[in-house]
Amino acid sequence: MTDTAPTTLARAAEPAADLTADPVRFGVGARVTVAVMADRYVDVIRGALAAADPAGLVLRTGDVSTYAGGDEADLLRWLTDLTEAVAASGEHAAVTVHLSRGCPGEVRCDLPGGAGPRGVEPPTGRRTGRFAAAEWALYPLADDVRAGVEPDHMRDIEAAIALARAGGTVRASEHFVTRLEGDLGAVLEAVVGAWTTVGRGVQHVTSHLTLSLNSPSHAGA
Amino acid sequence: MTDTAPTTLARAAEPAADLTADPVRFGVGARVTVAVMADRYVDVIRGALAAADPAGLVLRTGDVSTYAGGDEADLLRWLTDLTEAVAASGEHAAVTVHLSRGCPGEVRCDLPGGAGPRGVEPPTGRRTGRFAAAEWALYPLADDVRAGVEPDHMRDIEAAIALARAGGTVRASEHFVTRLEGDLGAVLEAVVGAWTTVGRGVQHVTSHLTLSLNSPSHAGA
Repeated sequence: MTDTAPTTLARAAEPAADLTADPVRFGVGARVTVAVMADRYVDVIRGALAAADPAGLVLRTGDVSTYAGGDEADLLRWLTDLTEAVAASGEHAAVTVHLSRGCPGEVRCDLPGGAGPRGVEPPTGRRTGRFAAAEWALYPLADDVRAGVEPDHMRDIEAAIALARAGGTVRASEHFVTRLEGDLGAVLEAVVGAWTTVGRGVQHVTSHLTLSLNSPSHAGA
Repeated sequence: MTDTAPTTLARAAEPAADLTADPVRFGVGARVTVAVMADRYVDVIRGALAAADPAGLVLRTGDVSTYAGGDEADLLRWLTDLTEAVAASGEHAAVTVHLSRGCPGEVRCDLPGGAGPRGVEPPTGRRTGRFAAAEWALYPLADDVRAGVEPDHMRDIEAAIALARAGGTVRASEHFVTRLEGDLGAVLEAVVGAWTTVGRGVQHVTSHLTLSLNSPSHAGA
């Protein structure tokens, strides 16, 4: 079972402002893989998908991941609902979240290069009472010199990590990733918030998060 | 249980050529999360780690992922061994692979900006007789204008996908990712090969792959 191929979402004659305003046409979304380490994984995954409020989102479930398209606040709420339900099962699980904005489609962005960044406030999450450990990477893919922004992805990443640090979930620097720990909702708020905030200055920003829930290593956390 | 923080690997007085020649100091490596959807997940994961030949690699296992550092050929062999053993268990599993090169450490690359790209041939993999479906993203993070390379990450991604297409595993374009299908070993060869090849022209290149093994959706594949 495969997702349908992305359609071309932009029209040449349309003003750029319209493209940044519509989250689905701007390519604001997530791909999520929920892996539950138990024989009853099908029931837990189905239950979690049923427990997550899909309001405002386009959802498509495939064999590798579920795609969710929509605005930042709806995505954060849905991701929090979904992963909280997985955590509530008590089963050990790994959840992979791939966020993207500013480049709908795959190889050629289906947006004109001049669409520019989308300026929205980072959404506020909620606390779940569930512990998560996570590894996080963020990629500002800014190489459109025409936008007047000097490309410097490490500067943008540092700014994002400073933001996440203010939220209290940043624990350590690892090879290639930042380690986050804390309330599952706070971890997701930090990641969605940093991605949204860097996206105020850079059109195409992606982020990859691997969450570990109910790990035997977390006993007592 | 946490990986130790990355150490500073570069020394200011050292010539750049030495930095690109040593894979560990250049930051060539992977973080891998194996999620087995069965009650006996601990045995399957331990068995797979034991079955994978670690020759030439630095390995550290944490609660979220296992880090492997070393050259491209050793990484491809280890990833193939590891995931083949998971597939051989017959259990449904999701395996997340995060490749990185050219930026050891986390926020500030512990390499001088002028280290430049690392020019090695893409390694040859082996076929496993096991089917995998996967979603793949590749990020050339080239913004060092001093290197004389015009930053254009979409051009580099297109070149990488063309390479992977030649290997016969590219199936579809999805939102944010390329869908790959085929022999598990061929999928890994395509991904490691594209990442290595793009890395011949760009210092810092990362790639994220989510593999689905033994999915109930793949019956008959």
